Amino acid sequence: MKTHLDCIPCFLKQTIESARITGADEKLQKKIIDEVCKIIPDFSFEASPPQMAVKIHKIIRELTSNKDPYKKIKQDSQKLALGMYPYLKEQVTKADDALSSAVKIAAIGNVIDLAVNDVATINRKLEDISNHEFAIFDYGQFTNALNNAKTILYLGDNAGEIVLDKLFIETINHNNLYFAVRGAPVINDATIEDAVEDNLDAFCTIISNGTDAPGTLLNQCSEEFMNIYNQADVIIAKGQANFETLNQVDRNIYFLTQIKCSTIAQRYGYCVGDWLMTTMNKLQAYDEVLL
Amino acid sequence: MKTHLDCIPCFLKQTIESARITGADEKLQKKIIDEVCKIIPDFSFEASPPQMAVKIHKIIRELTSNKDPYKKIKQDSQKLALGMYPYLKEQVTKADDALSSAVKIAAIGNVIDLAVNDVATINRKLEDISNHEFAIFDYGQFTNALNNAKTILYLGDNAGEIVLDKLFIETINHNNLYFAVRGAPVINDATIEDAVEDNLDAFCTIISNGTDAPGTLLNQCSEEFMNIYNQADVIIAKGQANFETLNQVDRNIYFLTQIKCSTIAQRYGYCVGDWLMTTMNKLQAYDEVLL
Repeated sequence: MKTHLDCIPCFLKQTIESARITGADEKLQKKIIDEVCKIIPDFSFEASPPQMAVKIHKIIRELTSNKDPYKKIKQDSQKLALGMYPYLKEQVTKADDALSSAVKIAAIGNVIDLAVNDVATINRKLEDISNHEFAIFDYGQFTNALNNAKTILYLGDNAGEIVLDKLFIETINHNNLYFAVRGAPVINDATIEDAVEDNLDAFCTIISNGTDAPGTLLNQCSEEFMNIYNQADVIIAKGQANFETLNQVDRNIYFLTQIKCSTIAQRYGYCVGDWLMTTMNKLQAYDEVLL
Repeated sequence: MKTHLDCIPCFLKQTIESARITGADEKLQKKIIDEVCKIIPDFSFEASPPQMAVKIHKIIRELTSNKDPYKKIKQDSQKLALGMYPYLKEQVTKADDALSSAVKIAAIGNVIDLAVNDVATINRKLEDISNHEFAIFDYGQFTNALNNAKTILYLGDNAGEIVLDKLFIETINHNNLYFAVRGAPVINDATIEDAVEDNLDAFCTIISNGTDAPGTLLNQCSEEFMNIYNQADVIIAKGQANFETLNQVDRNIYFLTQIKCSTIAQRYGYCVGDWLMTTMNKLQAYDEVLL
């Protein structure tokens, strides 16, 4: 999706949050914001918001001389999710429909984001999976697609959350499933190191998308990634950044995400906080502004 | 107060809102945002947020070639407030304590802001004045000060809202009260034209502060205004912009405002939405960051 004018204040809000997470003092935080403000006039609104995030987080890493500012948050998120894994696996095992249960748990895994939510909130959400409702849940279409798939590509999102993706992937139980992570640290997105730590390779092939962008910017992804992207019958894209970077490509991608921004919510007639598991052809755009 | 890092996203949010109110197309809205982003690196955080607002609204007026983009909103707000005036005057007349009732009505007048609230919200708030509670209401100290005052200066805020200030000023019933408005149109702030339309001059002397700044930037105010400011025994400052520009001056000003921003709320241990009628020496600052 294209960038909307309302994304600009949000970019700066995220910049401040990230600058604070790095431990930068206020003078350095101000310097980071100034540098981000300077590049906004040259940023094309034809680009998707994660393309701006790439630039913002490059500025933050450079000015703080910290290649992985979210390392501690990622480690804590991983630990938290791994601790929840046995309980959640039990829920899937005893569910009437294990796959449906695993999809929902993977979706809720999106709340394991210690940069945004505290531990109590995350625990409450994860323990309450039986009450979890999706605003749109194209489960029938999805299971049909899975049953006929020769190659599945699963695009991961954050560290920690990917433990719950593993549970979903275990339940899909497909012999040719690729799990893609970012090619380098950006925000709290999962990298190969995180996926290996969680033993995802026991159930799928872990690959890098070859970029340091949050989301999946196809024109920047590696050849290895694109080969698998092109041959996959089913693509599952997790999280809002993957939605923002892939919702206009000509593929029938299954987006599994929570709507976290009012611009996207307004565009498709949903609410901030709603959960979706659907393809783009099921979403009706109500608002043409700049998207 | 000084500008806080968290004010920056808010500046841009307000820029977008104002750009839209002017009717600028999206291309022009983007141009306005770009110009605002360009001046942020040169903006001193020692300055108060309204000093940035002066620059933002100058950019908007220049790029839209519109000297008074909020004219229609101001006119509609005036009409709405004048329509409510007889009902509100009746409430003051029949109140056990007319002055206390009038203070509260003047405070709630702050919601008459058609750039932010719709008519239904405004009507609901104004009709519900009997339930209105202040988080801090230094009424005893205030009435003592009024009783001993030789000269009172009342700093107004928005068009429309000033109709309710008039009701308060009528109730104070002082023979030497000055009501100050902005020297030129900025946002929906009241100017001389609005105050005269509402007949405030029947109960006080209307003066201009001589600037186009939202709030009261003393170093930019006219000599005429400063003479009255210096001789006033009691100063009543309405609205958050007056608070932001005057909360560090060495005068015992009575601030009558709703807290509309989380940074100020956090700073003084109140909540966004709380109403205050107090002087600075009654407010305890909890958070030293950049303010």
